[in-house]
This record gives sequence, C-alpha cells and structure tokens, in this order.
Amino acid sequence: MYTFIELQKIIEKEIDGLELSSPPQGLFEPMQYILGLGGKRLRPILVLLAANLYKDDLSKVCLPAIGIEIFHNFTLLHDDVMDNAPIRRRKATVHEKWNSNVAILSGDAMSIKAYQFIGSCEDRHLRDVLSVFNQTALEVCEGQQFDMEFESRSNVKVEEYLNMIRLKTAVLLGGSLKMGAIMGDSSTKDADLLYYFGVNLGMAFQLQDDLLDVFGDESVFGKKIGGDILSNKKTYLLINALEKVPPELKKDLKYWLEVKDFNPEEKIKAVKTIYEQLSVRELSQKKIDDYFALCLEYLDKVNVTAEKKKELYSLVKGLINRSV
Amino acid sequence: MYTFIELQKIIEKEIDGLELSSPPQGLFEPMQYILGLGGKRLRPILVLLAANLYKDDLSKVCLPAIGIEIFHNFTLLHDDVMDNAPIRRRKATVHEKWNSNVAILSGDAMSIKAYQFIGSCEDRHLRDVLSVFNQTALEVCEGQQFDMEFESRSNVKVEEYLNMIRLKTAVLLGGSLKMGAIMGDSSTKDADLLYYFGVNLGMAFQLQDDLLDVFGDESVFGKKIGGDILSNKKTYLLINALEKVPPELKKDLKYWLEVKDFNPEEKIKAVKTIYEQLSVRELSQKKIDDYFALCLEYLDKVNVTAEKKKELYSLVKGLINRSV
Repeated sequence: MYTFIELQKIIEKEIDGLELSSPPQGLFEPMQYILGLGGKRLRPILVLLAANLYKDDLSKVCLPAIGIEIFHNFTLLHDDVMDNAPIRRRKATVHEKWNSNVAILSGDAMSIKAYQFIGSCEDRHLRDVLSVFNQTALEVCEGQQFDMEFESRSNVKVEEYLNMIRLKTAVLLGGSLKMGAIMGDSSTKDADLLYYFGVNLGMAFQLQDDLLDVFGDESVFGKKIGGDILSNKKTYLLINALEKVPPELKKDLKYWLEVKDFNPEEKIKAVKTIYEQLSVRELSQKKIDDYFALCLEYLDKVNVTAEKKKELYSLVKGLINRSV
Repeated sequence: MYTFIELQKIIEKEIDGLELSSPPQGLFEPMQYILGLGGKRLRPILVLLAANLYKDDLSKVCLPAIGIEIFHNFTLLHDDVMDNAPIRRRKATVHEKWNSNVAILSGDAMSIKAYQFIGSCEDRHLRDVLSVFNQTALEVCEGQQFDMEFESRSNVKVEEYLNMIRLKTAVLLGGSLKMGAIMGDSSTKDADLLYYFGVNLGMAFQLQDDLLDVFGDESVFGKKIGGDILSNKKTYLLINALEKVPPELKKDLKYWLEVKDFNPEEKIKAVKTIYEQLSVRELSQKKIDDYFALCLEYLDKVNVTAEKKKELYSLVKGLINRSV
C-alpha cells in the first residue's frame, strides 16, 4: 500500500520527466509551464489510490493517472483564458505569459495528450476507462458553461448551483477514482461506489472553498479573503442569502451587490455581516458535513478491508479539518 | 461498393440526426451550428471509402467517421477564433455569432465528442484507431502552431512551409483513410499505403488552394481572388517568389509587401505579375502534379482490385481538374 505522500512524489517525478520539448516550442512550452506550477496532484493520486485498493503494482496505472492531471491542467488553462484571469498558483497564466492564441492551441494539444496518456492503460481496460473519461470530460465542460451562464443571471437556484459544481469539479474526482478502480480490476459495484465517494467528496471540497473564501483565516488560507464577495460570485453562500433574505435586509444586500464604487474591506465586512445574520455560514457548514458524511458512507461500502482504505479515510479526515 | 455521392448523403443524414440539444444550450448549439454549415464532408467520406475497399457493411464505421468530421469542425472553430475570422462557409463564425468564450468551450466539448464517436468503433480496432487519431490530431495542432509562427517570420523556407501544410491539412486526410482501412480489417501495409496516398493528396489539395486563390476564376472559385496576396500570406507562391526574386524585382516585391495604404486590385495585379515573371505559377503547378502522381503511385500499390479503387481514382481525377 502506498501513502498519499508517496504517490504524490511518484506523480511529481513522472511530471518532471515528461518530454514536452519537441518543436513547435510555442505548443509544448506552455504545457510544461502549467504542469510545472504544481498543485496537490489530487486527481492522479485518487486514480492511484483507487487502483491500489485492488493491486500492488501500479506501474501500468501511472501514465493514465498523469493523463488525468494533464486534462485537469488543460481545463485550468482554458478557464483562465475565458475568465481573463492573470494569475494561477501565484504565477502568470499562460495567456498572460504568452498570448490567448497560444493558450487556446496549447490547451487543445494538452487535451489530446491527455487522451494519449489515458489510452496507455491496458487493453482490457481501454474501453471502460475511455467511456468514464469521455463522459466526465464532457460534464466538466458543461459545468464550466453553466458557471459562465450564471454570471449574467440573477435568479440562480441552489439546486442549479449544486449541479454546476458537481459537473465542474466533483465528477472529475469521482471519475478519477472510478478509472483507478477499473484499472485495478475492481468489481463494477466497487467502481461505482468509489465514483460516488469521489463526487460527494468533491461537493464538500468545493463548498468548503466557497466558505473559506469568506470565513477563512487569510494568514493560513494563503490568498486574499473575500474575492468572491468583491466579484459578486454566485456561491452557495450568496445564492442562499438571496433566497433567505428578509425584506428589511434585502435593500442592504442589494446595495452591496450593485454599488460600483466602494471600499473593498467595507464591502467584505458588510456582506459577511449579512451572511452571519442570515446564518448562511452554518447552513453551508451543515451542507459540507452532509456531503462528507455521504462520501464516507460510500467509502464504507467499498468491498475491501478497512486497512486498505486507510489512506482514503485519512484523506477525507484531512479535508474535513482543512483550513487552506 | 458505395459511391462518393452515396457516402456523402449517408454522412449528411447522420449529421442532421445528431442529438446535440441537451442543456447547457450555450455548449451544444454552436456544435450543431458549425456542423450544419456544410462542406464536402471529405474526411468522413475518406474513412468510409477506405473501409469499403475491404468490407461491404459500413454500419460500424459510420459513427467513427462522423467523429472525424466533428474533430475537423472543432479545429475550424478554434482556428477561426485564433485568426479572428468573421466568416466561415458564408456564415458568421461561432465567436462572431456568440462570443469567443462560447467558441473556446464548445470547441473543447466538440473535441471530446469527437473522441466519443471515434471510440465507438469495434473493440478490436479501438487501440489502433485511437493511436492513429491521437497522433494525427496532435500533428494538426502542431501545423496550426507553425502556421501562426510563420506570420511573424520573414524567412520561412519552402521546406518549412511544406511541413506546415503536411501537418495542418494533409495528415488528417491520410489519417482518415488509415483509420477507415483499420476498421475495414485491411493489412497493415495497405493501411500505411492509404495513409501516404491521403497525405500526398492533401499536399496537392492545399497547394492547389494557394494557386486558385491567386490564379483561379472568381466566378467559378466562389470567393474573392487574391485574399492571400492582400494579407501577405506566406504561401508556396510567395515563399518561392521571395527565394527566387532577382535584385531588379526585389524592390518591387518588397514595396508591395510593406505598403500599408494601397488599392487592393492594384496590389493583386502587381504581385500576380511578379509571380508570372518568376514562373512560380508553373513551379507550383509542377509541385501539385508531383504530389498527385505520388498519391496515385501509393493508391496503385494498395492490394485490392482496380474496380474497388474506382471511387478513389475518380476522386483524385476530380481534384486534379478542380477549379473550385
């Protein structure tokens, strides 16, 4: 059994060793750059952890796992172009460092590279792995599309928001685990249980992100608190606040959502206060707890010993307590 | 044996019947739109023609062939964003009709859809088909990257240009034929011969495009003549002209390449005259003839009866004589 940290090192070493230097430079340098920006490598590690529940030798699962990380980074690259985001992991985004044409095209090439790596799994798993990946990848695009559409809508419902983050974020965690299980020759039932474990974990994770962006400790969280409030991002907190707000607070909330010229600290403080008054912080924490409980239920049912599932349990435990 | 026209109708019907209407609308409508703009459907027809050399029942080859057409349209969609092109097949491009974010994301989703369709081939062909497709798709991106890099370079060599059009255009024709051959259970040798047949056909086709853009008959060609000259596009004609131009004509050619304020008709006429003086028209026609001859040599060697190859021969013949 490998630990999370051991697998992270394996993935990091594989990514460092990728040969992405063939001409044309403008196509492959950005790939190397964005993959080199780091990150937790959560998705490929989930692939390997799931496979490791069923087999010890992960040598044939490693490249497909890297393929998932390449795909994830491709989505970040294109999302950054679409969001016109200047910074990713404290460095310039690809379209800032090069230009948006380079970002579009090297992203396209990355998505093909992802298929090459994922397709390097064993023959007997190829169709099933591709089928999970295709569906997941398409859903990630659907999630991004909903996310963009929500920006110009003022009537987004809680259920719509949850569906959007499920598609944009959660299914790729579930899909990673399911692909890993398939490559480990698990039963279909276990592969599905691990999928739902991952989806619910992803939901909890994303809702935590929303919560930490408002109520996190800046010195621990590592980035500015309140970004979502300043940009009026329709998060679980804001959508619930809009649904629950009583008449006497509505004018106040509306003012802060519409005002163009404001002091950032003042806006953050005011909106946080409204959130506190409406108890959406507690509501959000409750929802997060529910998703964590649900994900653990699925993990409990996976038909391998508790000893084998130790790393996955401790991953969940770590996430439940995370402050970054 | 199916004819080209019969296969075109089959492809057209399949594309018309595609179910691409699920939400989010903003993701799937643009797919339907660009696929509905028409075109010759050359690539999927090549898939089917190649498979048809070896088998009569094409029912399991049709969806993978559609996948190639989806991929091709995805590249057009993203190329149009990168080139900032307003018109595609006489209609507004996707980024004009919607916006560039929609074009980027629906393009991404199209490339995944392409994999879904291509992956619907029979199990025994899956790995080989994907392997050809992955390599081809990556090369198409490389070709587009070289094409963009050439725009800002003044020293592009003839060989570099030929390599660029090989990657950007020719390999997808070769790859389509090879994938069709594989799905027809051809020998590896035949699949490779058909690949090179297609690549050389593609080279001839692209060089013809360059030639027709300058020397075509506007009333037949269907689009404005001289667009490449007006935009100083580094075509086979211009690159050869720059390599061959003697000192006494060099100033003249340079003037037309650098002048900012000019009468379009006058520039087209002047550059055409220089091309005529340098015999680059004949040089280009000679190169086209060479590629056609080479492609026919490969087709001759394909190990099926001449009767079976009839449609491919007549396709080449039609292209040799094309004026549109």
